[in-house]
Amino acid sequence: MLAQLPPALQKLHLPLRLKLWDGNEFDLGTDPSVTIVVKDPSLVSDFSHPSLDLLGSAFVEGRLELEGSISEVMRVCDELTAALVDEDDNVVPVRTEHDKETDAKSISYHYDLSNAFYQLWLDKEMVYSCAYFKTGHETLEQAQQDKFDHLCRKLRLKPGEYLLDVGCGWGGLARFAAREYGVKVFGITLSREQLALARDRVKAEGLEDRVELQLLDYRDLPQDGRFDKIVSVGMFEHVGHANLELYAKCLFGAVKEGGLVMNHGITAKHTDGRPVGRGAGDFIDRYVFPNGELPHLSMITGFISEAGLEVVDVESLRLHYARTLDHWSMRLEEKLDVAAAMVPEQALRIFRLYLAGCAYAFSKGWINLHQILAVKPRPDGSHDLPWTRDDLYA
Amino acid sequence: MLAQLPPALQKLHLPLRLKLWDGNEFDLGTDPSVTIVVKDPSLVSDFSHPSLDLLGSAFVEGRLELEGSISEVMRVCDELTAALVDEDDNVVPVRTEHDKETDAKSISYHYDLSNAFYQLWLDKEMVYSCAYFKTGHETLEQAQQDKFDHLCRKLRLKPGEYLLDVGCGWGGLARFAAREYGVKVFGITLSREQLALARDRVKAEGLEDRVELQLLDYRDLPQDGRFDKIVSVGMFEHVGHANLELYAKCLFGAVKEGGLVMNHGITAKHTDGRPVGRGAGDFIDRYVFPNGELPHLSMITGFISEAGLEVVDVESLRLHYARTLDHWSMRLEEKLDVAAAMVPEQALRIFRLYLAGCAYAFSKGWINLHQILAVKPRPDGSHDLPWTRDDLYA
Repeated sequence: MLAQLPPALQKLHLPLRLKLWDGNEFDLGTDPSVTIVVKDPSLVSDFSHPSLDLLGSAFVEGRLELEGSISEVMRVCDELTAALVDEDDNVVPVRTEHDKETDAKSISYHYDLSNAFYQLWLDKEMVYSCAYFKTGHETLEQAQQDKFDHLCRKLRLKPGEYLLDVGCGWGGLARFAAREYGVKVFGITLSREQLALARDRVKAEGLEDRVELQLLDYRDLPQDGRFDKIVSVGMFEHVGHANLELYAKCLFGAVKEGGLVMNHGITAKHTDGRPVGRGAGDFIDRYVFPNGELPHLSMITGFISEAGLEVVDVESLRLHYARTLDHWSMRLEEKLDVAAAMVPEQALRIFRLYLAGCAYAFSKGWINLHQILAVKPRPDGSHDLPWTRDDLYA
Repeated sequence: MLAQLPPALQKLHLPLRLKLWDGNEFDLGTDPSVTIVVKDPSLVSDFSHPSLDLLGSAFVEGRLELEGSISEVMRVCDELTAALVDEDDNVVPVRTEHDKETDAKSISYHYDLSNAFYQLWLDKEMVYSCAYFKTGHETLEQAQQDKFDHLCRKLRLKPGEYLLDVGCGWGGLARFAAREYGVKVFGITLSREQLALARDRVKAEGLEDRVELQLLDYRDLPQDGRFDKIVSVGMFEHVGHANLELYAKCLFGAVKEGGLVMNHGITAKHTDGRPVGRGAGDFIDRYVFPNGELPHLSMITGFISEAGLEVVDVESLRLHYARTLDHWSMRLEEKLDVAAAMVPEQALRIFRLYLAGCAYAFSKGWINLHQILAVKPRPDGSHDLPWTRDDLYA
């Protein structure tokens, strides 16, 4: 039976046990911390070239099981693929057309899954984006509040200002900005589940007069410069490379002269957006974020600039997102039984891999997180930003 | 005589007086603050389409004179060209090949002009790059010291570290970092005049054991990762678009894993680097910085990333450079008589326009200044940067 394992596999030394469908076991090293239970015999031949997409897909389909802590599973599976798969296999994926219909479907697929499920492992405010850890030791709850504050500070929000929140999720940031900074907020999302719960929370907090949330596509935003500031968190990843130019123009049209625009989102390692991580991106595209496309920092800053916005402050929070995802993954792993009653088994398998996998991907630098602040200068080139960033840290 | 002025000119209302070679005068508005003295009759027809390059070149060639404060001259001449010249005339200039020989010549043309002349209007440390004004009210001397400190803080310099200064100018930053942060510095320049004076100053301060300066091309930098940190101030503007990829690779090769690289330089408004400002860039290219090429922020961050460096912090200091250039321009204007004895008349005319013109260009947003901090992550994706930027402002 062991002879059936591809020769390439037998040469490896990894803390990995392969358990085959007939009960035979094969250890690739001493003291294995992870076990891959191969339930489908046809998988064995694939193991000579096991991309992370292959392993992940087989897990989602129930053709293999993964045993061990989910973070250790990611680490060992990565070492396995790194030893056997050439990173250069990655090519720039074919990008899909993004229109309002496909975007609405893609967003609904992920975000309308189950509010209860997301509540299970997100913080209380259900902030579904990179947190901001001031020392690295904060709780997730604290770090998400600090992220809100960091964004509001960067936007130099002042009482009475009108803030647009593009991709408002469950409305945590919109309510925070209204409550703590006294602004009026217009938030948009394409997820009906998010919108319903977000509106409930606005009402529960008595903020209806200051926070208005709508199911709206960014392409339908008013273009009359009515907003003093714009914040977009975890949104541009869904826009698509082909539409980033239009996206930037829509933000430019929505914000007033002298106004600020914050884009906070995941960026690709390479300038052409091709993924790294030996198939990890294919898995994400297939199962997690259909039609998601990560732009490189240079791509998003390019489109922002050409739209007429001036990039004034960029900050990478890559390791903050690794830490955030570690929190999410650990919280989910602690409640797998409860989660299993909320979503289909396949969805749970997808989320287990996706959360642990993205934590790993951020820690390795396969993907990044950038907060990109831009200003729409007045025709004479002026704006109201302070001379330094001191005020962010006062 | 007045009838000879192009009809387009006669319709304008600007605080501008045109004084012709025969003594005739023509005011384009009441209370003119600026006078253009047209000495060459053949210029009149050009005035129907007066690019800033045309006006500037005619001034350098002595075919016209400009009267009024130099900053007001810039403002009024800009309004004149804006009314008569279509901004879309600008096309992407043909980029020259950059090799060591042409780069050495280009650098020498500008920086070897006269140390005494530069001393006349730069601060005492002869810092020839954008200063950092904490409130906007600092003296130039203070703001340049604060810029040094801002750069050293961003680089998280620690005693004993080895810092590479690419394009070290007159050595102000190298000496500051060695003196205030206890680092060892290796600085390079292609200007023999800068190097000579910079070495004198290192010696005068008794820093020979910690600051080594060499006449060296960036392409000849050691590629063994010997430097803990790299700083490059006002340098990438001279590299050329075609060589920015190589430049980024040279920095990557010179810095150790986990090390930091700071690029501080002037960036273009457009992603393809095409200039704005109705011919101002042509003037700069012809008379001030031959073969200089400004990359857009997206271009320089793209090459930095593809070389293997991760962009972690970007800050625009556009209005700081406008202020810096205002200082330089005013200092020069106050000492025109002394300056006239140091450099040829044509050079002085060039510098008067270039300093006032660039101050104006930064204030209008035709060009920008970005400090771009990048890290060379270790193979496992880790680095030693703190979680936040708090330490920069402590």
